[in-house]
Order: sequence, then C-alpha cells, then structure tokens
Amino acid sequence: MIYPTCLSNLINCYKKLPGVGEKSAERYSLSVLGMSDEDVNNFAAALIESKNNLHQCPVCGHITDSEICSICSDEGRNKNIICVLEDYKSVFAFEKAGNYDGVYHVLNGLISPIDDINPEDINIASLLQRVEKLKNPEVIIALKSTVEGDTTTLYLQKKLEKMNVSISRLSYGIPMGAEIDFLDEITLDRALNDRKKISK
Amino acid sequence: MIYPTCLSNLINCYKKLPGVGEKSAERYSLSVLGMSDEDVNNFAAALIESKNNLHQCPVCGHITDSEICSICSDEGRNKNIICVLEDYKSVFAFEKAGNYDGVYHVLNGLISPIDDINPEDINIASLLQRVEKLKNPEVIIALKSTVEGDTTTLYLQKKLEKMNVSISRLSYGIPMGAEIDFLDEITLDRALNDRKKISK
Repeated sequence: MIYPTCLSNLINCYKKLPGVGEKSAERYSLSVLGMSDEDVNNFAAALIESKNNLHQCPVCGHITDSEICSICSDEGRNKNIICVLEDYKSVFAFEKAGNYDGVYHVLNGLISPIDDINPEDINIASLLQRVEKLKNPEVIIALKSTVEGDTTTLYLQKKLEKMNVSISRLSYGIPMGAEIDFLDEITLDRALNDRKKISK
Repeated sequence: MIYPTCLSNLINCYKKLPGVGEKSAERYSLSVLGMSDEDVNNFAAALIESKNNLHQCPVCGHITDSEICSICSDEGRNKNIICVLEDYKSVFAFEKAGNYDGVYHVLNGLISPIDDINPEDINIASLLQRVEKLKNPEVIIALKSTVEGDTTTLYLQKKLEKMNVSISRLSYGIPMGAEIDFLDEITLDRALNDRKKISK
C-alpha cells in the first residue's frame, strides 16, 4: 500500500479511461490536491450529469442531452441531405470542419460478420425509414475505408438504390500534407482512379 | 456549440488536468458513456474524497488520509534515518523502489531566491526539530541536482553540521541504461569524481 486508500481508488478510476496508464493516472490524481474545492465538485458533478443525461437522439442516433439533438432540431439545417456516419465522434469531427449544413445519421457501428455484427444490429432500419419519408433525399455515406466500412457502404448502396435517392460516398485520395512516398499502395491506387480533371 | 452542454462541461474539467488537451479531454469524456453507473459514481466519489481527506502528515509532510501517515506510524521503520525529499511524488518513487526502511521528510519545495522561496517557506524548521530529538540521527538528502536542489542541499548541510548528525546525499552518476555518449558533461564529470573503486 504505497498510496493512501482514497488516492489509490482515484488512480484506479483514472486507469479505466482509454489510453491512461499507471503513471498518467497517478499524475492526474495528484493534481486534484492542487485544484479548488469548486473545481473538484464541478468535475464530480459533470461526470454524473454526463452519464445520466446523455442519450441517443431518437431521430439520428447522435448523442444529446435534450429530447431531440441540436442538429436535428435546427431549423436552418437541410433535412433532405443525410450524412451517414459510424459513430458520434465522427459527427463532432464534421461539425468542427463546419461546412456541412445537412443532417446526420449515426449507425453506431459497422457491419462485421466476423464480430457477429449484422445489418439489424446497427441503426440501418431507422435510416431507411427516414429516407422513405423524404421527397428528394440525398444520402452521403461517410464511412472509413476498411473491410467493415466498405461492406457497410455496399450494403447501404444496395438498399438505397431501390428507393428514389441520390447516393454518394466521400472521395478517396491523399490526405492533406501527406508525403506521397509514404502513402500505402491502396490509397495511391484509389487516388489515381478518383483523379480529378483540372484542365481541358 | 458542437457538444451537448454537460459533455462540454466535462471536457473543460478534464482539460484542467496536467498535460490533457482538447483531443484527450474529448476522448476521456466520451468514454463515460461506455462506463457503468457504478464506475461513474465511484469516480465522482473518489475525486471528492481525495480532495477532502488528503492532507499533509504533521510529522513528515507527506500526504495521507489518516492522522499520521502510514510510513511515520509504521513500527517496523527505522525512525533514526530520515530521507529528505522535495515532494510527495518522490516518496512514492522511493516506496516503489522498495529497499528503504527509514522514514522521510518532505520539504514541499526547494529554496529558490529567484522565485522568492526562502528556507522558511519550506518544511526545513520541522526537519531540524525532528533531528534534534533523535539520538543517533542519519539524514540522507535526496534532492535533484539543479541550482535549487543544490542550494537546498548546501543549506541543509550547513544547518545540520552544527548538530550531531550523519549526513549523506544521493550519489551522482550515470543513470541505468543510458548511452555514455549521450550524457551531458556535468553528469559525466560528476560520475568521474564520484567513481567507485571496484578492485585493489
């Protein structure tokens, strides 16, 4: 027992966070001693509040602390364009980029037969229902390019093709700032196939 | 407002931890959603308990959640050997090494005229009082080798020399596993001066 009991409890709690090991957990725990009472109480309250109040938006599957999420309830958003994402972290990434004014649909997973995740295990049925109700729907599939992502994209494509809907996926290509000679063959091959004419 | 309010509060709390930026704070905050209610409640309780219960041991200055710290109240420890440390983090480091059976004295700082930290601002007076009460005291000064650390060591040495006490400091030298050609000149110079005869 190197640590006082309450400190060792706190260290164990921090160690449950993703990517936090013994050393960081100790550092975070000891920093509590230097925080004001108010900050510590706010921290504890914020933890419990987040756990209790956050839930999935019944429309799009994004996380929210209100009945319908702020994006779905925003009058200024174009409800006819639905961007399909794997998880709510991707929503935050798109919102930070800040140029998209449509709405989202969060699948909360990807089809992966090897992990026994089938189409009915993720939010696909609710997406199809949403699309059915729209007049001129456009669906942008924005899933990562892995076996699971590509499988899910293909499955969605097959399902949506039967409906009157415009479908697109994100472009493949070289990421900003990347050195060409460090890119893997598949990315280069796809960037070549998806090349964009810039003159005549 | 990209995040729901309670989530953005939690992210701000995490950002107050040492070395935690926007991205890690977001990651830690979102992990709360995957934790059990029990884990979240324990986490919140551990934060408040640590803040409320931890205080300095009146004998040695180490942090503890009991009246006297577990080291000072341990009958098996040799109370005549006092290891002087800068902070409680160093105590944890020594305890993890596990070979020291004396007690500690935590200065909670180092003398640093440039930062206006004088001998009376750190736990030096209580150390001298402790030493005075012992019959055959031995003091090991284990402070880092910087201007502040060396100044504090020298000050303690001057003060303690007037009392009947055996004084030592940690040895200077090359750390475990270090490449000799990457070491700075001062470390090499000190390792040479402190060299240890290994034969005849």
